[in-house]
Amino acid sequence: MDTSPLSLARSLLRCPSVTPEEGGALSFIESVLKAAGFEVHRPVFSEPGTPDVENLYARYGTGKPYLLFAGHTDVVPPGEVSRWRHDPFSAEIEDGELYGRGAVDMKGGIACMMAAALGFIRDNPDFSGSIGFLITGDEEGPAINGTVKLLKWAKGRGERFDHCILGEPTNPNQLGDMIKIGRRGSLTGKIVVEGKQGHVAYPHLTDNPIPGMLRLLEGLLREPLDHGTDHFDASNLEVTTVDVGNPASNVIPAEARATFNIRFNDLWTPESLEAEISSRLSEAAGNSVRYTLRMEPTNAIAFLTPPNEFVGFIADAIEAETGFRPKLSTTGGTSDARFIVKDCPVVEFGLVGQTMHQVDERVAVEDLNRLAAIYRKVLNAYFAPNP
Amino acid sequence: MDTSPLSLARSLLRCPSVTPEEGGALSFIESVLKAAGFEVHRPVFSEPGTPDVENLYARYGTGKPYLLFAGHTDVVPPGEVSRWRHDPFSAEIEDGELYGRGAVDMKGGIACMMAAALGFIRDNPDFSGSIGFLITGDEEGPAINGTVKLLKWAKGRGERFDHCILGEPTNPNQLGDMIKIGRRGSLTGKIVVEGKQGHVAYPHLTDNPIPGMLRLLEGLLREPLDHGTDHFDASNLEVTTVDVGNPASNVIPAEARATFNIRFNDLWTPESLEAEISSRLSEAAGNSVRYTLRMEPTNAIAFLTPPNEFVGFIADAIEAETGFRPKLSTTGGTSDARFIVKDCPVVEFGLVGQTMHQVDERVAVEDLNRLAAIYRKVLNAYFAPNP
Ligand SMILES: [Zn+2]
Ligand SMILES: [Zn+2]
Repeated sequence: MDTSPLSLARSLLRCPSVTPEEGGALSFIESVLKAAGFEVHRPVFSEPGTPDVENLYARYGTGKPYLLFAGHTDVVPPGEVSRWRHDPFSAEIEDGELYGRGAVDMKGGIACMMAAALGFIRDNPDFSGSIGFLITGDEEGPAINGTVKLLKWAKGRGERFDHCILGEPTNPNQLGDMIKIGRRGSLTGKIVVEGKQGHVAYPHLTDNPIPGMLRLLEGLLREPLDHGTDHFDASNLEVTTVDVGNPASNVIPAEARATFNIRFNDLWTPESLEAEISSRLSEAAGNSVRYTLRMEPTNAIAFLTPPNEFVGFIADAIEAETGFRPKLSTTGGTSDARFIVKDCPVVEFGLVGQTMHQVDERVAVEDLNRLAAIYRKVLNAYFAPNP
Repeated sequence: MDTSPLSLARSLLRCPSVTPEEGGALSFIESVLKAAGFEVHRPVFSEPGTPDVENLYARYGTGKPYLLFAGHTDVVPPGEVSRWRHDPFSAEIEDGELYGRGAVDMKGGIACMMAAALGFIRDNPDFSGSIGFLITGDEEGPAINGTVKLLKWAKGRGERFDHCILGEPTNPNQLGDMIKIGRRGSLTGKIVVEGKQGHVAYPHLTDNPIPGMLRLLEGLLREPLDHGTDHFDASNLEVTTVDVGNPASNVIPAEARATFNIRFNDLWTPESLEAEISSRLSEAAGNSVRYTLRMEPTNAIAFLTPPNEFVGFIADAIEAETGFRPKLSTTGGTSDARFIVKDCPVVEFGLVGQTMHQVDERVAVEDLNRLAAIYRKVLNAYFAPNP
């Protein structure tokens, strides 16, 4: 079997695993890893109201330390197929680039992990640690029957990971740009201001909720939440919508609603943030604004894997392969790393994200080879016998 | 024919003239006025996209001065008929009250005008002035094929009015409470703030339009427009809706929209108000908020009929009949008086408005008799030979 990163990536891209479909992608990974000596499991998780989702867990070796590769094979829909230069599931190569949905997010990354692991095992059949794969089919969907349940399932089996690399496309422009060593948390809240409806000609018989809403939002936005930390930007609050929905310009409405979202750094927990928001609103409202605040439940906490020896292995491997010293970043949206970090330190590094979720998603074949080489150097360093 | 106010009102209430239907109401008025010697016209007006509407214009006499009674026979729909104590179009009387849609708004008022005019003409067959009726069937509807066109039509015929009484229900609590000698104007504007859509995790790539909208609305509301005048309350601005319509709490929206309505007094014209609004917005926006302001065309100017001899006739008649000196008010919504005032001074006085537009709209039979007596006293004074 050709276990080059390109060959593995093409096989994976040809599986139409649009979330939540398995599409053959996990079966392909299973067959490759089994042939290399991995013990492979394929747990399926379900939940009322959501589709059943297939997942994969594989481990080679039984010793310590245990390095886990994590990722997902499900992909977002290709959109209008006719707008693609090449069919999104045929894995065509043109001018040194491999086209297909999932090329960078993140079947390409998984192919590189597999190629690196297979090569390492072939060259070091007697290494004393463990290498694992934790691959979900539910990252792009509701993310209910995926990583969270898979981690819980593995824990139930007694699996204990020491470190994890999540292969999401972390590089904004070129391979080696950026490692993610943490992520901001995300918290959403909804405000409703209550007034009293009536005719604009008789305002004394009404209570317009809109000026009260303006005061509350002004109070939320007046002061920054913080000014950032060593590894994080400042937390940021965005009001994402304000809605009254009153079509009649001669009517004062009964109610105004607003939603805000906060991307917060490691100075905050969802609980401390909610307390801060409540206090700001209460101060802005004074005695005159009747309102309710409801925070949505969140599992998107802020987390950081401090730059330690493990992060150093990855940064060194990147520099050796690309010549770049990668930026250690905590920017961007949330990822499954927020779940994994509860079990072990996790760092994210993968391909270049520019084309992800877009028409003509693609990856340079050279990037596949170099990312596999980087992962291989990480394995070499991670499992090197202590001097 | 029984030309008592009650009899005329019952006949009118039995006509199902839900706007824009004529329902027999204008035909009834035509037959009564013709029998009393009026010249009656029934112009029908049309406009693409709106229903054709019947109207009525009647005049008795050819001399000066010319006093015009104005009103409308169309009514708002009765709503849920089963919730009415009596059928809304059967004109039942219970405990001294006449029930029916239009009892106070304003078939009752028209019945009183007719009874007063018929009585006056019967008792003064040779008076030298003119009495007219200008009755539309399009006041509760779009008001396009009603009073405005009827006035233009009358002007085209060479009709020149000296004074007008509009019989809308002006009394908040009991007959004699309130004369309306003017009305505030109404002006509506819409603001759109443009931003740039994007993901909340990457705010530097976006431009959230909501904070800009908050600044603009804050700038609009900061200072009162004025502090009122001799006969008017302070002008009042209400933001009636703010809408973004963004369902995704992880997305910064592209646009925010707001609508406001101003009820303004005689210190302002629509033009001077628009200039003030533009200046407030421009100051609040500074260089950083991209927005557009669009004012809706309005014909609702502020107007005042200063308390003169004519207003005195009406106030005296009310006091003589009820014992109350009526309040001279400019409060409330807009009315067709804003159109008539361009041709002659207009004062509004009618029944008690409490039940208008509601289930069980009704009028005390005694109020009908007293309003007819008041109108009659006005006619007596208005057409009294100069001493
Ligand atoms: Zn992904
Ligand atoms: Zn009316």
